[in-house]
Amino acid sequence: MSKDDTQDNNQEKCVVLLSGGLDSATCLAVARDQGYACHTMAVDYGQRHRAELTASEKLSRAMGAVDHKVLHIDLRQIGGSALTDDIDVPQQREQGIPVTYVPARNTIFLSMALAYAETLDAQRIFIGVNQVDYSGYPDCRPEFIQAFENLAQLATKAGVEGRPITIETPLLTLNKAQIIRLGHDLGVDYSLTVSCYQADVHGRACGRCDSCHYRKKGFAEAGIADPTPYQPQHG
Amino acid sequence: MSKDDTQDNNQEKCVVLLSGGLDSATCLAVARDQGYACHTMAVDYGQRHRAELTASEKLSRAMGAVDHKVLHIDLRQIGGSALTDDIDVPQQREQGIPVTYVPARNTIFLSMALAYAETLDAQRIFIGVNQVDYSGYPDCRPEFIQAFENLAQLATKAGVEGRPITIETPLLTLNKAQIIRLGHDLGVDYSLTVSCYQADVHGRACGRCDSCHYRKKGFAEAGIADPTPYQPQHG
Repeated sequence: MSKDDTQDNNQEKCVVLLSGGLDSATCLAVARDQGYACHTMAVDYGQRHRAELTASEKLSRAMGAVDHKVLHIDLRQIGGSALTDDIDVPQQREQGIPVTYVPARNTIFLSMALAYAETLDAQRIFIGVNQVDYSGYPDCRPEFIQAFENLAQLATKAGVEGRPITIETPLLTLNKAQIIRLGHDLGVDYSLTVSCYQADVHGRACGRCDSCHYRKKGFAEAGIADPTPYQPQHG
Repeated sequence: MSKDDTQDNNQEKCVVLLSGGLDSATCLAVARDQGYACHTMAVDYGQRHRAELTASEKLSRAMGAVDHKVLHIDLRQIGGSALTDDIDVPQQREQGIPVTYVPARNTIFLSMALAYAETLDAQRIFIGVNQVDYSGYPDCRPEFIQAFENLAQLATKAGVEGRPITIETPLLTLNKAQIIRLGHDLGVDYSLTVSCYQADVHGRACGRCDSCHYRKKGFAEAGIADPTPYQPQHG
Protein backbone atom coordinates (compact mmCIF):
# COMPACT_ATOMS: atom_id res chain seq x y z
CA MET A 1 0.00 0.00 0.00
CA SER A 2 1.58 3.31 -0.99
CA LYS A 3 1.46 6.47 1.11
CA ASP A 4 -1.01 8.01 -1.36
CA ASP A 5 -3.45 5.15 -0.98
CA THR A 6 -3.50 5.59 2.78
CA GLN A 7 -4.50 9.23 2.53
CA ASP A 8 -7.86 8.59 0.90
CA ASN A 9 -10.24 10.91 2.76
CA ASN A 10 -13.03 8.36 2.87
CA GLN A 11 -10.85 5.85 4.61
CA GLU A 12 -11.62 5.23 8.29
CA LYS A 13 -8.74 6.00 10.64
CA CYS A 14 -7.35 3.87 13.40
CA VAL A 15 -4.58 4.09 15.97
CA VAL A 16 -2.25 1.07 16.17
CA LEU A 17 -0.02 0.60 19.21
CA LEU A 18 3.20 -0.53 17.55
CA SER A 19 5.90 -1.60 19.99
CA GLY A 20 8.14 -3.02 17.30
CA GLY A 21 7.56 -6.62 18.37
CA LEU A 22 6.13 -9.52 16.41
CA ASP A 23 2.62 -9.21 17.81
CA SER A 24 2.13 -5.51 17.22
CA ALA A 25 3.53 -5.80 13.67
CA THR A 26 0.95 -8.50 12.95
CA CYS A 27 -1.73 -6.34 14.48
CA LEU A 28 -0.79 -3.49 12.15
CA ALA A 29 -0.99 -5.87 9.19
CA VAL A 30 -4.52 -6.88 10.23
CA ALA A 31 -5.63 -3.24 10.59
CA ARG A 32 -4.17 -2.41 7.18
CA ASP A 33 -5.83 -5.47 5.67
CA GLN A 34 -9.19 -4.31 7.07
CA GLY A 35 -8.77 -1.09 5.09
CA TYR A 36 -7.97 1.39 7.84
CA ALA A 37 -5.69 4.39 7.47
CA CYS A 38 -3.25 3.44 10.21
CA HIS A 39 -1.69 5.95 12.61
CA THR A 40 0.96 4.07 14.52
CA MET A 41 2.10 4.99 18.01
CA ALA A 42 5.06 3.75 20.00
CA VAL A 43 5.71 4.62 23.62
CA ASP A 44 9.21 5.40 24.78
CA TYR A 45 8.82 4.51 28.43
CA GLY A 46 12.49 4.11 29.24
CA GLN A 47 12.49 0.42 28.29
CA ARG A 48 15.87 -1.23 28.40
CA HIS A 49 15.41 -2.80 24.97
CA ARG A 50 15.68 0.41 22.93
CA ALA A 51 15.95 -1.61 19.72
CA GLU A 52 12.15 -2.00 19.86
CA LEU A 53 11.65 1.71 19.22
CA THR A 54 13.86 1.66 16.13
CA ALA A 55 12.05 -1.43 14.89
CA SER A 56 8.70 0.25 15.42
CA GLU A 57 9.59 3.20 13.22
CA LYS A 58 10.96 0.98 10.45
CA LEU A 59 7.88 -1.23 10.53
CA SER A 60 5.50 1.71 10.36
CA ARG A 61 7.21 3.01 7.25
CA ALA A 62 7.62 -0.42 5.64
CA MET A 63 3.94 -1.22 6.19
CA GLY A 64 2.57 2.03 4.76
CA ALA A 65 1.14 3.66 7.89
CA VAL A 66 -0.06 7.26 7.47
CA ASP A 67 2.23 8.46 10.24
CA HIS A 68 4.18 7.33 13.27
CA LYS A 69 4.27 8.98 16.65
CA VAL A 70 6.61 8.26 19.54
CA LEU A 71 5.24 9.36 22.90
CA HIS A 72 7.74 9.86 25.69
CA ILE A 73 6.92 8.94 29.24
CA ASP A 74 9.64 7.77 31.54
CA LEU A 75 8.18 4.91 33.57
CA ARG A 76 11.60 4.49 35.22
CA GLN A 77 10.47 7.41 37.40
CA ILE A 78 7.85 5.01 38.76
CA GLY A 79 9.90 1.81 38.67
CA GLY A 80 8.79 -1.69 39.53
CA SER A 81 9.78 -3.89 36.57
CA ALA A 82 12.73 -5.77 35.14
CA LEU A 83 11.99 -4.04 31.83
CA THR A 84 12.76 -0.60 33.19
CA ASP A 85 14.76 -1.21 36.39
CA ASP A 86 17.99 -2.97 37.14
CA ILE A 87 16.23 -6.21 38.03
CA ASP A 88 17.69 -9.09 35.98
CA VAL A 89 15.50 -10.44 33.22
CA PRO A 90 15.14 -14.16 33.96
CA GLN A 91 16.56 -16.62 31.45
CA GLN A 92 13.94 -19.24 32.18
CA ARG A 93 10.17 -19.13 32.07
CA GLU A 94 8.48 -18.20 35.33
CA GLN A 95 5.27 -19.17 37.05
CA GLY A 96 2.63 -16.54 37.96
CA ILE A 97 2.99 -12.87 37.07
CA PRO A 98 6.48 -12.36 35.57
CA VAL A 99 9.02 -9.80 36.86
CA THR A 100 8.90 -8.33 33.36
CA TYR A 101 5.34 -7.15 34.11
CA VAL A 102 5.38 -3.34 34.06
CA PRO A 103 2.78 -1.93 36.50
CA ALA A 104 -0.29 -0.76 34.60
CA ARG A 105 1.62 -0.59 31.31
CA ASN A 106 -1.21 -1.48 28.95
CA THR A 107 -3.54 0.81 30.88
CA ILE A 108 -1.13 3.71 30.33
CA PHE A 109 -0.54 2.82 26.66
CA LEU A 110 -4.25 2.48 25.90
CA SER A 111 -4.95 5.78 27.70
CA MET A 112 -2.51 7.57 25.46
CA ALA A 113 -3.85 5.83 22.37
CA LEU A 114 -7.33 6.89 23.50
CA ALA A 115 -6.32 10.55 23.69
CA TYR A 116 -4.71 10.27 20.26
CA ALA A 117 -7.71 8.50 18.73
CA GLU A 118 -10.06 11.14 20.07
CA THR A 119 -7.90 13.92 18.64
CA LEU A 120 -7.73 12.20 15.23
CA ASP A 121 -11.42 11.35 15.34
CA ALA A 122 -10.52 7.68 14.94
CA GLN A 123 -12.95 5.14 16.35
CA ARG A 124 -10.64 2.13 16.55
CA ILE A 125 -7.54 1.37 18.59
CA PHE A 126 -5.63 -1.79 17.63
CA ILE A 127 -3.48 -3.48 20.26
CA GLY A 128 -1.65 -6.77 19.82
CA VAL A 129 -2.35 -8.31 23.22
CA ASN A 130 -2.90 -12.03 23.46
CA GLN A 131 -3.93 -14.09 26.41
CA VAL A 132 -2.39 -17.36 25.23
CA ASP A 133 1.33 -16.73 25.53
CA TYR A 134 1.00 -13.88 28.02
CA SER A 135 -1.45 -15.43 30.42
CA GLY A 136 0.68 -14.19 33.34
CA TYR A 137 0.01 -10.53 32.55
CA PRO A 138 -3.25 -9.23 34.04
CA ASP A 139 -3.52 -6.53 31.37
CA CYS A 140 -3.52 -8.99 28.46
CA ARG A 141 -6.83 -10.59 29.43
CA PRO A 142 -10.12 -10.10 27.59
CA GLU A 143 -11.81 -8.85 30.78
CA PHE A 144 -9.19 -6.09 31.00
CA ILE A 145 -9.81 -5.06 27.39
CA GLN A 146 -13.57 -5.09 27.97
CA ALA A 147 -13.14 -2.91 31.06
CA PHE A 148 -10.99 -0.46 29.12
CA GLU A 149 -13.52 -0.24 26.31
CA ASN A 150 -16.21 0.50 28.86
CA LEU A 151 -13.99 3.19 30.39
CA ALA A 152 -13.23 4.69 26.96
CA GLN A 153 -16.91 5.17 26.28
CA LEU A 154 -17.39 7.06 29.56
CA ALA A 155 -14.08 8.94 29.54
CA THR A 156 -14.23 10.74 26.23
CA LYS A 157 -16.13 13.48 24.51
CA ALA A 158 -16.34 11.11 21.52
CA GLY A 159 -17.96 8.42 23.67
CA VAL A 160 -20.41 10.82 25.31
CA GLU A 161 -21.39 12.21 21.91
CA GLY A 162 -22.15 8.75 20.50
CA ARG A 163 -18.93 7.95 18.67
CA PRO A 164 -17.49 5.33 21.03
CA ILE A 165 -13.88 4.29 20.51
CA THR A 166 -13.45 0.53 20.48
CA ILE A 167 -10.39 -1.58 21.29
CA GLU A 168 -9.54 -4.10 18.58
CA THR A 169 -7.55 -7.14 19.67
CA PRO A 170 -7.25 -9.39 16.59
CA LEU A 171 -4.59 -11.57 18.26
CA LEU A 172 -6.33 -12.06 21.59
CA THR A 173 -7.01 -15.78 21.31
CA LEU A 174 -4.22 -16.79 18.92
CA ASN A 175 -1.09 -18.62 19.96
CA LYS A 176 2.32 -17.52 18.69
CA ALA A 177 2.31 -19.95 15.74
CA GLN A 178 -1.12 -18.76 14.62
CA ILE A 179 -0.03 -15.13 14.91
CA ILE A 180 3.04 -15.83 12.78
CA ARG A 181 1.02 -17.64 10.13
CA LEU A 182 -1.49 -14.77 10.02
CA GLY A 183 1.23 -12.13 9.67
CA HIS A 184 3.11 -14.21 7.13
CA ASP A 185 -0.02 -14.43 4.98
CA LEU A 186 -0.43 -10.63 5.28
CA GLY A 187 3.15 -9.98 4.21
CA VAL A 188 4.79 -8.98 7.51
CA ASP A 189 8.58 -8.93 7.32
CA TYR A 190 9.36 -10.43 10.73
CA SER A 191 13.07 -9.80 10.35
CA LEU A 192 12.22 -6.17 11.13
CA THR A 193 10.56 -7.01 14.45
CA VAL A 194 12.26 -7.25 17.83
CA SER A 195 10.81 -9.40 20.62
CA CYS A 196 13.87 -10.00 22.76
CA TYR A 197 14.01 -8.36 26.21
CA GLN A 198 17.78 -8.03 25.81
CA ALA A 199 18.27 -7.24 22.13
CA ASP A 200 21.55 -5.53 21.30
CA VAL A 201 21.84 -2.14 19.58
CA HIS A 202 21.54 -3.83 16.18
CA GLY A 203 18.22 -5.35 17.23
CA ARG A 204 19.72 -8.84 17.46
CA ALA A 205 18.04 -11.20 19.90
CA CYS A 206 19.66 -13.05 22.84
CA GLY A 207 17.86 -16.29 22.00
CA ARG A 208 17.50 -17.27 25.65
CA CYS A 209 14.93 -15.07 27.42
CA ASP A 210 11.23 -15.75 27.89
CA SER A 211 10.30 -13.73 24.87
CA CYS A 212 12.88 -15.39 22.57
CA HIS A 213 11.67 -18.77 23.78
CA TYR A 214 8.06 -18.07 22.74
CA ARG A 215 9.12 -16.58 19.45
CA LYS A 216 11.37 -19.48 18.37
CA LYS A 217 8.75 -22.00 19.38
CA GLY A 218 6.18 -20.03 17.36
CA PHE A 219 8.18 -20.11 14.14
CA ALA A 220 8.92 -23.81 14.62
CA GLU A 221 5.23 -24.65 15.19
CA ALA A 222 4.13 -22.44 12.29
CA GLY A 223 6.56 -24.29 10.01
CA ILE A 224 7.97 -20.96 8.85
CA ALA A 225 11.72 -20.23 8.77
CA ASP A 226 12.74 -17.98 11.66
CA PRO A 227 14.19 -14.76 10.14
CA THR A 228 15.18 -13.37 13.57
CA PRO A 229 18.71 -11.94 13.67
CA TYR A 230 20.44 -13.49 16.71
CA GLN A 231 23.51 -12.31 18.59
CA PRO A 232 26.75 -14.14 17.60
CA GLN A 233 27.12 -15.97 20.93
CA HIS A 234 23.73 -17.63 20.40
CA GLY A 235 24.18 -21.42 20.25
CA MET B 1 2.54 16.94 60.28
CA SER B 2 6.34 16.64 60.24
CA LYS B 3 8.27 14.50 57.77
CA ASP B 4 9.08 12.01 60.53
CA ASP B 5 5.42 11.52 61.42
CA THR B 6 4.61 10.67 57.82
CA GLN B 7 7.22 7.94 57.72
CA ASP B 8 5.60 5.75 60.35
CA ASN B 9 5.86 2.24 58.91
CA ASN B 10 2.40 1.25 60.08
CA GLN B 11 0.78 4.11 58.23
CA GLU B 12 -1.14 3.18 55.09
CA LYS B 13 0.15 4.81 51.92
CA CYS B 14 -1.80 6.62 49.27
CA VAL B 15 -1.09 8.41 46.01
CA VAL B 16 -2.61 11.88 45.65
CA LEU B 17 -2.85 13.51 42.22
CA LEU B 18 -1.84 17.06 43.04
CA SER B 19 -2.21 19.47 40.14
CA GLY B 20 -1.58 22.54 42.27
CA GLY B 21 -5.18 23.72 42.02
CA LEU B 22 -7.70 24.36 44.77
CA ASP B 23 -9.47 21.03 44.42
CA SER B 24 -6.41 18.80 44.50
CA ALA B 25 -4.97 20.72 47.49
CA THR B 26 -8.22 20.08 49.37
CA CYS B 27 -8.09 16.45 48.33
CA LEU B 28 -4.58 16.13 49.79
CA ALA B 29 -5.81 17.70 53.03
CA VAL B 30 -8.58 15.09 53.24
CA ALA B 31 -6.14 12.21 52.62
CA ARG B 32 -3.80 13.57 55.27
CA ASP B 33 -6.69 14.01 57.68
CA GLN B 34 -7.68 10.37 57.13
CA GLY B 35 -4.21 9.38 58.35
CA TYR B 36 -2.56 8.30 55.11
CA ALA B 37 1.12 8.73 54.29
CA CYS B 38 0.65 10.81 51.16
CA HIS B 39 2.78 10.41 48.03
CA THR B 40 1.87 13.30 45.77
CA MET B 41 2.15 13.20 41.98
CA ALA B 42 1.90 16.01 39.46
CA VAL B 43 1.88 15.49 35.72
CA ASP B 44 3.81 17.83 33.50
CA TYR B 45 1.81 17.37 30.30
CA GLY B 46 2.92 20.51 28.55
CA GLN B 47 0.12 22.60 30.07
CA ARG B 48 0.28 26.28 29.28
CA HIS B 49 -0.25 27.29 32.89
CA ARG B 50 3.15 26.17 34.21
CA ALA B 51 2.50 27.98 37.50
CA GLU B 52 0.38 24.96 38.50
CA LEU B 53 3.45 22.72 38.65
CA THR B 54 5.32 25.10 40.91
CA ALA B 55 2.26 25.40 43.14
CA SER B 56 1.97 21.62 43.32
CA GLU B 57 5.49 21.20 44.62
CA LYS B 58 5.07 23.96 47.21
CA LEU B 59 1.77 22.51 48.42
CA SER B 60 3.19 19.01 48.76
CA ARG B 61 5.98 20.31 50.99
CA ALA B 62 3.75 22.68 52.96
CA MET B 63 1.23 19.92 53.64
CA GLY B 64 3.74 17.33 54.84
CA ALA B 65 3.53 14.76 52.04
CA VAL B 66 6.12 11.97 52.17
CA ASP B 67 7.39 12.81 48.71
CA HIS B 68 6.46 14.52 45.47
CA LYS B 69 6.91 13.19 41.97
CA VAL B 70 6.53 15.04 38.70
CA LEU B 71 5.85 12.76 35.74
CA HIS B 72 6.60 14.14 32.31
CA ILE B 73 4.43 13.33 29.35
CA ASP B 74 4.03 15.82 26.60
CA LEU B 75 0.37 15.75 25.58
CA ARG B 76 1.10 18.55 23.09
CA GLN B 77 2.40 15.75 20.89
CA ILE B 78 -1.21 14.56 20.75
CA GLY B 79 -2.92 17.94 20.78
CA GLY B 80 -6.62 18.67 20.89
CA SER B 81 -7.15 21.15 23.74
CA ALA B 82 -6.96 24.84 24.53
CA LEU B 83 -4.90 23.90 27.59
CA THR B 84 -2.02 22.53 25.52
CA ASP B 85 -2.53 23.98 22.01
CA ASP B 86 -2.75 27.48 20.64
CA ILE B 87 -6.54 27.54 20.86
CA ASP B 88 -7.69 30.61 22.83
CA VAL B 89 -9.04 29.94 26.30
CA PRO B 90 -12.54 31.44 26.33
CA GLN B 91 -13.21 34.30 28.73
CA GLN B 92 -16.84 33.35 29.21
CA ARG B 93 -18.43 30.14 30.38
CA GLU B 94 -19.33 27.70 27.62
CA GLN B 95 -22.15 25.22 27.06
CA GLY B 96 -21.45 21.48 26.59
CA ILE B 97 -17.95 20.04 26.71
CA PRO B 98 -15.48 22.95 27.04
CA VAL B 99 -12.53 23.53 24.67
CA THR B 100 -10.34 23.26 27.77
CA TYR B 101 -11.21 19.54 27.90
CA VAL B 102 -7.98 17.61 27.31
CA PRO B 103 -8.70 14.29 25.53
CA ALA B 104 -8.58 11.42 28.03
CA ARG B 105 -6.61 13.49 30.55
CA ASN B 106 -7.97 11.97 33.74
CA THR B 107 -7.69 8.50 32.20
CA ILE B 108 -3.99 9.11 31.55
CA PHE B 109 -3.39 10.68 34.97
CA LEU B 110 -5.16 7.87 36.82
CA SER B 111 -3.25 5.28 34.78
CA MET B 112 0.03 6.78 35.89
CA ALA B 113 -1.14 7.06 39.48
CA LEU B 114 -2.20 3.41 39.25
CA ALA B 115 1.29 2.33 38.17
CA TYR B 116 2.80 4.38 40.97
CA ALA B 117 0.37 3.05 43.59
CA GLU B 118 1.11 -0.51 42.54
CA THR B 119 4.86 0.08 42.82
CA LEU B 120 4.48 1.68 46.27
CA ASP B 121 2.03 -0.99 47.38
CA ALA B 122 -0.52 1.74 48.10
CA GLN B 123 -4.17 0.76 47.90
CA ARG B 124 -5.70 4.22 47.54
CA ILE B 125 -5.49 6.89 44.86
CA PHE B 126 -6.98 10.28 45.74
CA ILE B 127 -8.16 12.54 42.91
CA GLY B 128 -9.95 15.85 43.34
CA VAL B 129 -12.56 15.49 40.61
CA ASN B 130 -16.00 16.92 41.14
CA GLN B 131 -19.07 16.65 39.02
CA VAL B 132 -20.75 19.81 40.23
CA ASP B 133 -18.62 22.58 38.76
CA TYR B 134 -17.10 20.42 36.02
CA SER B 135 -20.22 18.75 34.73
CA GLY B 136 -19.05 19.41 31.17
CA TYR B 137 -16.05 17.09 31.51
CA PRO B 138 -16.91 13.44 30.82
CA ASP B 139 -13.98 12.26 32.96
CA CYS B 140 -15.19 14.02 36.11
CA ARG B 141 -18.34 11.91 36.41
CA PRO B 142 -18.90 9.20 39.04
CA GLU B 143 -19.57 6.61 36.30
CA PHE B 144 -16.12 7.33 34.88
CA ILE B 145 -14.49 6.87 38.30
CA GLN B 146 -16.42 3.64 38.84
CA ALA B 147 -15.28 2.35 35.44
CA PHE B 148 -11.68 3.22 36.23
CA GLU B 149 -11.83 1.44 39.57
CA ASN B 150 -13.20 -1.62 37.82
CA LEU B 151 -10.37 -1.42 35.30
CA ALA B 152 -7.76 -0.99 38.06
CA GLN B 153 -8.85 -4.20 39.68
CA LEU B 154 -8.44 -6.14 36.43
CA ALA B 155 -5.34 -4.34 35.17
CA THR B 156 -2.93 -4.83 38.02
CA LYS B 157 -1.01 -7.57 39.75
CA ALA B 158 -2.23 -6.02 43.02
CA GLY B 159 -5.86 -6.33 41.90
CA VAL B 160 -5.45 -9.91 40.67
CA GLU B 161 -3.75 -10.87 43.93
CA GLY B 162 -6.61 -9.51 46.07
CA ARG B 163 -5.24 -6.07 46.99
CA PRO B 164 -7.46 -3.91 44.76
CA ILE B 165 -6.52 -0.26 44.39
CA THR B 166 -9.47 2.06 44.91
CA ILE B 167 -10.06 5.57 43.64
CA GLU B 168 -11.00 8.03 46.36
CA THR B 169 -12.94 11.11 45.26
CA PRO B 170 -13.81 13.03 48.45
CA LEU B 171 -14.89 16.12 46.46
CA LEU B 172 -17.08 14.36 43.92
CA THR B 173 -20.43 15.77 44.99
CA LEU B 174 -19.30 19.03 46.60
CA ASN B 175 -19.68 22.43 45.03
CA LYS B 176 -16.84 24.93 45.07
CA ALA B 177 -18.01 26.68 48.24
CA GLN B 178 -18.28 23.36 50.09
CA ILE B 179 -14.80 22.35 48.90
CA ILE B 180 -13.36 25.64 50.13
CA ARG B 181 -15.04 25.31 53.51
CA LEU B 182 -13.76 21.75 53.87
CA GLY B 183 -10.19 22.73 52.98
CA HIS B 184 -10.34 25.80 55.17
CA ASP B 185 -11.33 23.63 58.16
CA LEU B 186 -8.42 21.29 57.35
CA GLY B 187 -5.92 24.14 57.22
CA VAL B 188 -5.27 24.43 53.47
CA ASP B 189 -3.43 27.62 52.53
CA TYR B 190 -5.31 28.49 49.34
CA SER B 191 -2.98 31.34 48.51
CA LEU B 192 -0.54 28.62 47.41
CA THR B 193 -2.99 27.10 44.91
CA VAL B 194 -3.38 28.10 41.27
CA SER B 195 -6.64 27.53 39.42
CA CYS B 196 -6.36 30.06 36.61
CA TYR B 197 -5.93 28.79 33.05
CA GLN B 198 -3.81 31.83 32.30
CA ALA B 199 -1.84 32.45 35.49
CA ASP B 200 1.35 34.44 35.04
CA VAL B 201 4.82 33.23 36.01
CA HIS B 202 4.26 34.41 39.58
CA GLY B 203 1.15 32.23 39.82
CA ARG B 204 -1.15 35.26 39.74
CA ALA B 205 -4.62 34.67 38.32
CA CYS B 206 -6.27 36.48 35.39
CA GLY B 207 -9.57 36.85 37.25
CA ARG B 208 -11.60 36.42 34.06
CA CYS B 209 -11.45 32.81 32.79
CA ASP B 210 -13.88 30.00 33.51
CA SER B 211 -11.75 28.66 36.29
CA CYS B 212 -11.29 32.07 37.99
CA HIS B 213 -15.04 32.62 37.77
CA TYR B 214 -15.82 29.40 39.68
CA ARG B 215 -13.12 30.06 42.23
CA LYS B 216 -14.19 33.61 43.07
CA LYS B 217 -17.81 32.55 43.30
CA GLY B 218 -16.76 29.70 45.63
CA PHE B 219 -14.98 31.95 48.09
CA ALA B 220 -17.88 34.39 48.05
CA GLU B 221 -20.44 31.65 48.70
CA ALA B 222 -18.27 30.06 51.40
CA GLY B 223 -18.04 33.42 53.15
CA ILE B 224 -14.25 33.09 53.26
CA ALA B 225 -11.89 35.87 52.13
CA ASP B 226 -10.37 35.08 48.74
CA PRO B 227 -6.57 34.87 49.23
CA THR B 228 -5.91 34.43 45.47
CA PRO B 229 -3.12 36.63 44.12
CA TYR B 230 -4.51 38.37 41.01
CA GLN B 231 -2.64 40.04 38.16
CA PRO B 232 -2.40 43.86 38.45
CA GLN B 233 -4.73 44.54 35.49
CA HIS B 234 -7.52 42.69 37.26
CA GLY B 235 -10.42 45.08 37.92
